[in-house]
Amino acid sequence: MDPDAVAKAFVEHYYSTFDTNRVSLANLYQDNSMLTFEGQKIQGTQNIVAKLTSLPFQRCKHVITTVDCQPSAPTGGGMVVFVSGNLQLADEQHALKFSQMFHLMPTPQGSFYVLNDIFRLNYA
Amino acid sequence: MDPDAVAKAFVEHYYSTFDTNRVSLANLYQDNSMLTFEGQKIQGTQNIVAKLTSLPFQRCKHVITTVDCQPSAPTGGGMVVFVSGNLQLADEQHALKFSQMFHLMPTPQGSFYVLNDIFRLNYA
Repeated sequence: MDPDAVAKAFVEHYYSTFDTNRVSLANLYQDNSMLTFEGQKIQGTQNIVAKLTSLPFQRCKHVITTVDCQPSAPTGGGMVVFVSGNLQLADEQHALKFSQMFHLMPTPQGSFYVLNDIFRLNYA
Repeated sequence: MDPDAVAKAFVEHYYSTFDTNRVSLANLYQDNSMLTFEGQKIQGTQNIVAKLTSLPFQRCKHVITTVDCQPSAPTGGGMVVFVSGNLQLADEQHALKFSQMFHLMPTPQGSFYVLNDIFRLNYA
């Protein structure tokens, strides 16, 4: 299993879900998951999804520019994923640049969940 | 020990070392450390320092805009640190925006080393 391919597939799934059915992001977090969104710290699936679904824009589209990944330990199967891209809001003319990192951990079912998630807009 | 204070101190030390004595960054990596620099993957202290000291600019200054951190596991003492900032090159009028993530792991001596390091410029 190529880690770069896994990371890219995860990232595409994550933002596609974010842009079309944000509440379903709940499937990608667990109760020990942490999100830091523009400096605000949030923990647990329910709180994270509440935050993401209450952002002050309903329609948006993430366009990925780069995806980098590395294994997060010699063993254990986790990986860190670093994304840069553009966030296009429905009501805004200009896209916002963002960077985001995920620390993905394997699940017993053979997929991954987000343990760490840090999001920042890159103001021009 | 406040994790945010530790992360901030690490980040200030890292960029201060980068800007004044780049070769000393060797002290912050180990042989299992990974760096992805603008998409190029490099492993091990020696290779990482060789990369960082051979960048096509000798004098630079990192100005930190944001530092976010989270514990990278319930136990173990690791932390993920996410930085955004500006990179001012000596010969360039405009600063470059960058984002970088570190996954820090504790050492037996009570400090931290960089296990994962991913760097990206954010082109405007």
